[in-house]
Amino acid sequence: QTNFYRDTWAEINLDALSYNIEKMRQHIGNDVKLIAVVKANAYGHGDEDIAAAALASGASYLAVAFLDEALALRKKGINAPILVLGACRPIDARLAAEWEITLTVFQPQWLEEASLYLLPDKKLKIHLKLDTGMGRLGVREKDILKKLELSIKQNASIHLEGVYTHFATADEIDSTYLEYQLSHFHKMLSYFDERPKFLHLSNSAAALRFPSTHFNAIRLGISMYGLSPSPEIEEDLPYRLKPVLSLHTKLVHVKKIKKGSKLSYGATYEAEEDEWIGTLPIGYADGWIRRLNGQEVLVNGLRAPIVGRICMDQCLVKLPNEFPVGTVVTLIGRQGGASISVNEIAKKLDTINYEITCMIAGRVPRVYKKDGQVTRILNPLL
Amino acid sequence: QTNFYRDTWAEINLDALSYNIEKMRQHIGNDVKLIAVVKANAYGHGDEDIAAAALASGASYLAVAFLDEALALRKKGINAPILVLGACRPIDARLAAEWEITLTVFQPQWLEEASLYLLPDKKLKIHLKLDTGMGRLGVREKDILKKLELSIKQNASIHLEGVYTHFATADEIDSTYLEYQLSHFHKMLSYFDERPKFLHLSNSAAALRFPSTHFNAIRLGISMYGLSPSPEIEEDLPYRLKPVLSLHTKLVHVKKIKKGSKLSYGATYEAEEDEWIGTLPIGYADGWIRRLNGQEVLVNGLRAPIVGRICMDQCLVKLPNEFPVGTVVTLIGRQGGASISVNEIAKKLDTINYEITCMIAGRVPRVYKKDGQVTRILNPLL
Ligand SMILES: Cc1ncc(COP(=O)(O)O)c(CN[C@H](C)C(=O)O)c1O
Ligand SMILES: Cc1ncc(COP(=O)(O)O)c(CN[C@H](C)C(=O)O)c1O
Repeated sequence: QTNFYRDTWAEINLDALSYNIEKMRQHIGNDVKLIAVVKANAYGHGDEDIAAAALASGASYLAVAFLDEALALRKKGINAPILVLGACRPIDARLAAEWEITLTVFQPQWLEEASLYLLPDKKLKIHLKLDTGMGRLGVREKDILKKLELSIKQNASIHLEGVYTHFATADEIDSTYLEYQLSHFHKMLSYFDERPKFLHLSNSAAALRFPSTHFNAIRLGISMYGLSPSPEIEEDLPYRLKPVLSLHTKLVHVKKIKKGSKLSYGATYEAEEDEWIGTLPIGYADGWIRRLNGQEVLVNGLRAPIVGRICMDQCLVKLPNEFPVGTVVTLIGRQGGASISVNEIAKKLDTINYEITCMIAGRVPRVYKKDGQVTRILNPLL
Repeated sequence: QTNFYRDTWAEINLDALSYNIEKMRQHIGNDVKLIAVVKANAYGHGDEDIAAAALASGASYLAVAFLDEALALRKKGINAPILVLGACRPIDARLAAEWEITLTVFQPQWLEEASLYLLPDKKLKIHLKLDTGMGRLGVREKDILKKLELSIKQNASIHLEGVYTHFATADEIDSTYLEYQLSHFHKMLSYFDERPKFLHLSNSAAALRFPSTHFNAIRLGISMYGLSPSPEIEEDLPYRLKPVLSLHTKLVHVKKIKKGSKLSYGATYEAEEDEWIGTLPIGYADGWIRRLNGQEVLVNGLRAPIVGRICMDQCLVKLPNEFPVGTVVTLIGRQGGASISVNEIAKKLDTINYEITCMIAGRVPRVYKKDGQVTRILNPLL
């Protein structure tokens, strides 16, 4: 078991993850498959452990952003089917087939080129992506769709397993654009001579809110991690989500500074009175970015503000009184009755919760917990 | 040699690194040691290759933020002395001694506790840190300093190798606070019965601007990476810096969208006319954060703006005309006569260049170049 030597860590509550997945399983029913989206190192939670826990809790397919992420999971022993949501080079189609990784396809030219590299005894599974209004990747026109369908049919080394699209606004109260995308999907689906096995459209927000978008599989990301797709729909979710990630550190230095003393880079903070100051071993290279200046953290269940500029590896907090070195400080999560949510941090940064967990850097160890026990520590540095 | 399968990569120009170090070597002269600061994965450039190249170019000591980073370098075969700039648990002092890692010390209590774990035949090297005005870590009072000095003297398993402090404002035009810190350092130095071997104060800005702060070693970070410690002193630097990092990707999808079409999450972008849109396989989970919406990138030497919300793994650019899939897009760096600097990105995000390179996520492969040739590819995913 790896260890870590700096007291800054993200705790990953696998019970919360399982709970969130089980709730979604009940919500979508038995006929709908659950694809666990574990791209971006499982939104910063750690791909391997999250993938394994998700599969154990009711997911049967995984999705990642690009081929390297899929290969990484394979090399860590994850054997479940994996869909790459992003683009892939045609020349790498053979590698994907060898590792039984499903690719997303939407360009006739890609298919032609990829065919040159595929071997007949090792079929490549693909999902066709339709662009119904997200505007990122996907087929937008009927003739291209038909062209793709035809060339897939003529190619013995390619198996069309699924068709999907992605919603742009499923997390907004106003569902007009979603309905437009949904009807567009239905229309494009009608162009197919034969419907492939999996039809999937829903991200968390759509899956939670619009049963008509479930078809026979959903792609579950943010809500699996216990976070609401947006603050505006949080009130109306069919069940309460349990946040999976919390972020902690410990005081490494505590001192009383005199009124007028200045702190950190730029000496921008000046003590208005004699003050207790704690040093935290976390900084912007951990993803605790400089704009979080002023953000509060929890010390002994109380809120204490970050003062002075956040440094690369450290920041400073103004303590209500003296605390011993080694006191746990919670940046995201609960301490007694107090809590700081990912949403609070997102709001402070004028961004979305997705970005916050993704930003927690690789050098922060992930500590996995189940039934209140640490089951694994992942420290990519060692 | 590791490969990567998504066309997004950071290029690390080791010739530029060597140049920046050699210039600093000339600037400080032969009597001043150069400590290369390679914490935070060498400010995002990759610790192993940067450490090796820095040592080959005139650095003789390395510095990192915490013990794990030092151990990581040791495990990658880096044998040079390494100073941990941050705090370390007393219980881990023995591990540091075993791996010949130098620790920063500033608390008498720490020294007492650490002593319990040290072995007499394996000395721990330490540097004492003085807090002369940064307010992060360090001794602030004479009696604590004397106490530390005494207990170090009485402890056969500890060797005091250096004393140092850190400047808060060395990158500002106004040098008042720096001078205050410098004179405070001189004063505290006078309290020592015996001066240890290494006295070091200077970060890049101080080393570049104030020879009186050189003493017999400097700690070189940002300017080694070819970036100015702040925009305000850039004009007056004694030599021109060469940026080490550039960031690139390739178009994975190109399409013409109709006037009125909407793009990306929230469907916030609406095409004002028929437009060519390119999809880039880079997003906020790569460190290309959402606030970079509107930022320009280089395509074929021309600037093209990011349009629509930046996604986790992708973003969209408005192209001046059609370009083939596979066209290189530069997010940071040069294309022909055009260039986008780290400083431009920092300015857009209202932050400092340090944060930008640190933020480029672990999943972005680092491609090392020397004499125009790729010497190594580092893809932490595989
Ligand atoms: C194609 C696709 N499917 C499913 C999901 C899961 O969405 P959610 O986390 O809302 O359940 C995503 C996530 N997208 C991220 C957020 C992005 O591209 O920015 C996705 O890109
Ligand atoms: C103790 C110490 N020495 C030397 C350096 C190198 O500084 P520069 O990169 O300006 O040359 C740093 C960097 N500090 C970072 C920036 C921080 O703590 O935020 C440092 O913390």
